[in-house]
Amino acid sequence: MHHHSERVYNFSAGPAVLPKVVLERIASEMISLPGVGSSILEVSHRGKVFTEYLNRARDGLRNTLKVPDEYEILFLQGGSRLQFAMLPMNFLRGTQKKAAYAVTGSWGKQALAEAERLGKAECVWSGEDQGFVDLPTAPFQLDANDYSYFYYVSNETIQGLQFPGEPQAGDVPLICDASSDFLHKPIDINRYGIIYACAQKNAGPAGLTIVIIRKEMIPSGNSDLPGYLDYHAHAANGSLFNTPPTFAIYVFALVIEWLNGEAGGLERMYELNHRKAKLLYDVIDRFQGVYRGHAKAECRSVMNVVFNFLDESLKEKFLMGAETAGLTSLAGHRSVGGIRASIYNAMPLEGVEKLADYMFDFAESNG
Amino acid sequence: MHHHSERVYNFSAGPAVLPKVVLERIASEMISLPGVGSSILEVSHRGKVFTEYLNRARDGLRNTLKVPDEYEILFLQGGSRLQFAMLPMNFLRGTQKKAAYAVTGSWGKQALAEAERLGKAECVWSGEDQGFVDLPTAPFQLDANDYSYFYYVSNETIQGLQFPGEPQAGDVPLICDASSDFLHKPIDINRYGIIYACAQKNAGPAGLTIVIIRKEMIPSGNSDLPGYLDYHAHAANGSLFNTPPTFAIYVFALVIEWLNGEAGGLERMYELNHRKAKLLYDVIDRFQGVYRGHAKAECRSVMNVVFNFLDESLKEKFLMGAETAGLTSLAGHRSVGGIRASIYNAMPLEGVEKLADYMFDFAESNG
Repeated sequence: MHHHSERVYNFSAGPAVLPKVVLERIASEMISLPGVGSSILEVSHRGKVFTEYLNRARDGLRNTLKVPDEYEILFLQGGSRLQFAMLPMNFLRGTQKKAAYAVTGSWGKQALAEAERLGKAECVWSGEDQGFVDLPTAPFQLDANDYSYFYYVSNETIQGLQFPGEPQAGDVPLICDASSDFLHKPIDINRYGIIYACAQKNAGPAGLTIVIIRKEMIPSGNSDLPGYLDYHAHAANGSLFNTPPTFAIYVFALVIEWLNGEAGGLERMYELNHRKAKLLYDVIDRFQGVYRGHAKAECRSVMNVVFNFLDESLKEKFLMGAETAGLTSLAGHRSVGGIRASIYNAMPLEGVEKLADYMFDFAESNG
Repeated sequence: MHHHSERVYNFSAGPAVLPKVVLERIASEMISLPGVGSSILEVSHRGKVFTEYLNRARDGLRNTLKVPDEYEILFLQGGSRLQFAMLPMNFLRGTQKKAAYAVTGSWGKQALAEAERLGKAECVWSGEDQGFVDLPTAPFQLDANDYSYFYYVSNETIQGLQFPGEPQAGDVPLICDASSDFLHKPIDINRYGIIYACAQKNAGPAGLTIVIIRKEMIPSGNSDLPGYLDYHAHAANGSLFNTPPTFAIYVFALVIEWLNGEAGGLERMYELNHRKAKLLYDVIDRFQGVYRGHAKAECRSVMNVVFNFLDESLKEKFLMGAETAGLTSLAGHRSVGGIRASIYNAMPLEGVEKLADYMFDFAESNG
């Protein structure tokens, strides 16, 4: 446990590091938003004050990702888990069509399992037998007459695998869980039917799920779906079907403004994310007698750098030394073991440099 | 719009006023929790730091409401709206039983509508024809062989009606939406099958729903329910089925500690809440030529004081004068009109005194 009051470099996979200037802003107006006399935690979701933040969040995201007018932006609760259920419930009921799932890691596997319980879902690719170390490369020859959607996870947080671009799935709409690489680079929204993300990696605090959905995919509203699980209910009410997670939306608005302001925009962010990831992968590749990267080189994530030790007994020593150096939350997910360094947008280059140096020194001392 | 930087008295129905000391605490550790080096927004939901707050929230609530071991405490997302769906989906599927709903205001009506879409739900009492001004008083003669549960809303936020105690429903388990009067007084949890509340009135920020459920009511986990909608999934995973709304849970832990500390505990809070409500109802009753309370006197809420003007044109003048006096968010819900003063636990006595004085002076000047 740390006993400094200064900030550490926190490599948590999520909830994860946020920009320090955003935290400072939140702290400075926690007692009273400027000119309001109440905290963001205390104002009505239908009042002027929150409405302004809701619009800043929505418009900011629309501008940042160049989201076309043909798409709706929704702010929901329930995380990816609720999306896992909403997708088959909205798009497989009342149709003979199936859904196609590419299972490239733990989250895709769980999404498929939920879809199989709620509709006709088919696994069209799985990396499980290989231990989730690679990704599909060939285009999927699928027909929209047979499949309602093609589901994939753009970045598997636990295994540290990331698609370099959108997979090809014929004329079947892509649905992407982008929770752990949302807003890490510019993308072409037109390629997606739905792209969604929980906020707690690149976008804000836990408790907010951001959904960008092509309007023509939104159900008619005449369904027998549970109200909260119907995309129509949220779209028709501008994300105010019920009280949304107001604080998380406010923080998201601030993060978006940081991204486009001080952070230099999405192109610059992507360049920086690549530099950060390369620093770590270069050390892993240099010390192949000590470290072993989890994913195949061409599938490596720029967000979650996952590796193990040839000598697994080194793990605890590595973690203890890192903690002492102010480098925290580096333990890998229990299903994969080893180390996971999550280096989202808000992780400063300096933090990654410090970790790369630590890894270098550790390998030299223990190789 | 206000331009002071000092805090106003905010009578919002929710999200609503929080204790100032809680906000100060949040602000002071937003950049770094003491000894941690990261914000509460940035730490893993499975790590030591958050686990401590999760336990403080759960144990604090258990101690405060004397929740017996036979009950589980769950921290969920999705608000009352998701509970509206989860209740019939968990308790009406695979059974011939019905659910009984008492409709005493807008929220009970919406809960019933959702239950009717998802199962066999029966309205056993409705105050709608009378405009939601009163409550059922006679015991309901219901049989647990016919009904899975009896649903009611302990305090209707929009109409300002509050049950003085739990209704009697034979041997049928009570399910109570206590969103807007949770933790306003001591209650006997043994009377309930489930009592739940969204946090954003008496307990914390929006985005957290607190569910206290009798363990024997939790489904077996073998159902075909969507995962997130299965109480079993949350109970079996200690509210960590997926990433919970960590910040809201942390704030809830602080609110609970404030309630039992500086605020003097639940008995004291109840006494104060009664004093606060009486101040306002006394002015309403004194100036019957100006004000007209919405609920019948014996059904009046101590949390939401709802009234109108005999001369409805006075409303805007009242609101403008209140705003100038630093008394904000007093407009009634659009479906009822008039004024709604929400005076939850965190609204200081001084704020209510100031409002009562303002109402007194306003009536004298405009009567």
